[in-house]
Amino acid sequence: MSAARIGVVDTMFSRADMGSLCVKTLKEYAPKPVEVLRRTVPGVKDLPVAAKKLLEEEKCEIVLALGMPGKEEIDKICAHEASQGIIHVQLLTNRHIIEVFVHEDEAKDGNDLAQLMKNRAEKHALNALDLLFNPASLIQRAGTGQRQGRENAVSLQLI
Amino acid sequence: MSAARIGVVDTMFSRADMGSLCVKTLKEYAPKPVEVLRRTVPGVKDLPVAAKKLLEEEKCEIVLALGMPGKEEIDKICAHEASQGIIHVQLLTNRHIIEVFVHEDEAKDGNDLAQLMKNRAEKHALNALDLLFNPASLIQRAGTGQRQGRENAVSLQLI
Amino acid sequence: MSAARIGVVDTMFSRADMGSLCVKTLKEYAPKPVEVLRRTVPGVKDLPVAAKKLLEEEKCEIVLALGMPGKEEIDKICAHEASQGIIHVQLLTNRHIIEVFVHEDEAKDGNDLAQLMKNRAEKHALNALDLLFNPASLIQRAGTGQRQGRENAVSLQLI
Amino acid sequence: MSAARIGVVDTMFSRADMGSLCVKTLKEYAPKPVEVLRRTVPGVKDLPVAAKKLLEEEKCEIVLALGMPGKEEIDKICAHEASQGIIHVQLLTNRHIIEVFVHEDEAKDGNDLAQLMKNRAEKHALNALDLLFNPASLIQRAGTGQRQGRENAVSLQLI
Amino acid sequence: MSAARIGVVDTMFSRADMGSLCVKTLKEYAPKPVEVLRRTVPGVKDLPVAAKKLLEEEKCEIVLALGMPGKEEIDKICAHEASQGIIHVQLLTNRHIIEVFVHEDEAKDGNDLAQLMKNRAEKHALNALDLLFNPASLIQRAGTGQRQGRENAVSLQLI
Repeated sequence: MSAARIGVVDTMFSRADMGSLCVKTLKEYAPKPVEVLRRTVPGVKDLPVAAKKLLEEEKCEIVLALGMPGKEEIDKICAHEASQGIIHVQLLTNRHIIEVFVHEDEAKDGNDLAQLMKNRAEKHALNALDLLFNPASLIQRAGTGQRQGRENAVSLQLI
Repeated sequence: MSAARIGVVDTMFSRADMGSLCVKTLKEYAPKPVEVLRRTVPGVKDLPVAAKKLLEEEKCEIVLALGMPGKEEIDKICAHEASQGIIHVQLLTNRHIIEVFVHEDEAKDGNDLAQLMKNRAEKHALNALDLLFNPASLIQRAGTGQRQGRENAVSLQLI
Repeated sequence: MSAARIGVVDTMFSRADMGSLCVKTLKEYAPKPVEVLRRTVPGVKDLPVAAKKLLEEEKCEIVLALGMPGKEEIDKICAHEASQGIIHVQLLTNRHIIEVFVHEDEAKDGNDLAQLMKNRAEKHALNALDLLFNPASLIQRAGTGQRQGRENAVSLQLI
Repeated sequence: MSAARIGVVDTMFSRADMGSLCVKTLKEYAPKPVEVLRRTVPGVKDLPVAAKKLLEEEKCEIVLALGMPGKEEIDKICAHEASQGIIHVQLLTNRHIIEVFVHEDEAKDGNDLAQLMKNRAEKHALNALDLLFNPASLIQRAGTGQRQGRENAVSLQLI
Repeated sequence: MSAARIGVVDTMFSRADMGSLCVKTLKEYAPKPVEVLRRTVPGVKDLPVAAKKLLEEEKCEIVLALGMPGKEEIDKICAHEASQGIIHVQLLTNRHIIEVFVHEDEAKDGNDLAQLMKNRAEKHALNALDLLFNPASLIQRAGTGQRQGRENAVSLQLI
């Protein structure tokens, strides 16, 4: 049987190359052979159709969609439109797309931004592998306050 | 005839495990044999496609989609996008998905949050059972100010 | 030929039973025999799929979708999501759904709220009958500032 | 060959009858014989499906969708939902719908509102005729700051 | 084999003619013969269906959708609706549409606005050519903070 195909699509707008990092992480940690396909588009609003093409035309089984929305109000709106489109693609294809967005204003400076982008991209690449190869492992972490890129939240017992 | 299938999907982002509680409640109170399928995804924006797969690929008749959106503005937007997707899935499948979202800032502290999550998850698990097995029972509670997780609202007469 | 089928769907969240009032009004004022089908769901976000099922599975020709969104910001967002879904259902079915939403904060107190709900539900039940049986009668009221539930607005001449 | 069919749909909520004005303008200025079909619905959220029915069931080639959203915040949201629906219908039918919305608070008083509604409705009726019978004429006005209902904006050279 | 078809659609509302500039840039820089089809519509909300018709009826392989949303709140909402529609068209056609929107209030005066519109339209015309004829070249610029119309952002290393 052939290797599972995983798509990675990122943007030229982003201030750091999360795409290459995701490709590297996927290849390093995949429990089975994978083929990783990479695409780059201008900005986050171009991600939905690029992801759809990876799923439909390139037969990827899952896609990571990476973006770094800027600080302006208009950037927030673009990110919202992109997210709606990314959800829509998933419903049209019955496949998961892991959205990895780091908002520029989540970070206090350039260093912090780079750290956050690195951390979130790596963690979500691992999530994508788990969703694809070991979905039951996610159930074991259900409701545990997982945060990709920052410290996890405190988890609570429901008694 | 085989048991009705009910799907439960929740997130790793959530600070408490509403998924296990729902599974337990469904099994305990179902008036007929049910088979409960559980899935977990990273965050609320991953819920729509997971619910759709439970309905279409796993032949569930109804799904509970559980999430705990955080306090930040961006969390509110994610929840909104997830909700739009969840409604969209229902229209594509002609099946109900009961969205059980507890916003972290609805609660005044961790204890209150846990209480609210427990209460809302249990009440909506019962609602799902009613929608599936006894829909007429909901008509008897129409317009009665039902609130899942808090005290019911005062109901009014239309004369 | 069989009686026209009209659907009515409302919520348990609402603080008054607009559903029963609509059913009564439809039966009392229909110029021809009608069959009215009633459904109740937990909240406004459950209305779209319930309306779609009434149109597609129960062959209703028109549906009234009744809701009373609460005062909180989150309630406003739920109502917005529900409204988008209700429009979507109409486009998927080529049938009208008359949305009858009374926002809790439109009213100054419980009495006023009950009055508004009663008035709007009755007026829109009549609108639904007109759309179904006498659509030309609506053209005669075009641009006349009709308000369901409050006094009509002042209408203007375009010369 | 039969006359082109043009649809006009407006609302009872609007404070002036832009529908009749559009019908008159279309008939007066059409360069070829046209058949104009008129529909009226309660409010702007009922426009999308009414426009779709005119395009699909009545074989209209283009539709004018007329509305006058009120001053309240909820009216703005209704207009937004209606506009999203109107765009969706166009994508489902591959036909243009010219949305002619006059927001009540664009005008300083009733006279100004009536003037604005008249002007915008007439201008957009002419735009609809151009889109249908002479689309190249719009290219000649590209980037010229056309405003329907108010004075045009100052246009700029790109050198 | 016949020349690739590229669509350009712009608006009469815009205060400068980005459409002609795009047509000129595409013809000048295309590495292979291209056929450019031009359309103009009234405003940004008319762009989605016009782009869809260029893709489906005119067999364009990519479209540039140009608009200049005004300064008012309502203009922002129109731009948002247009953007959602443009993303939707891409998902329905599996083709890229490069949205080139310049918000009037991004610029400090008319000169600045003209400069910005020229720069962004030209840069995105080149992006469209790269997406069509040389998509791998975009990967080389992934995460480099590309800004069309203004200076690029500072890019960061992920170590």
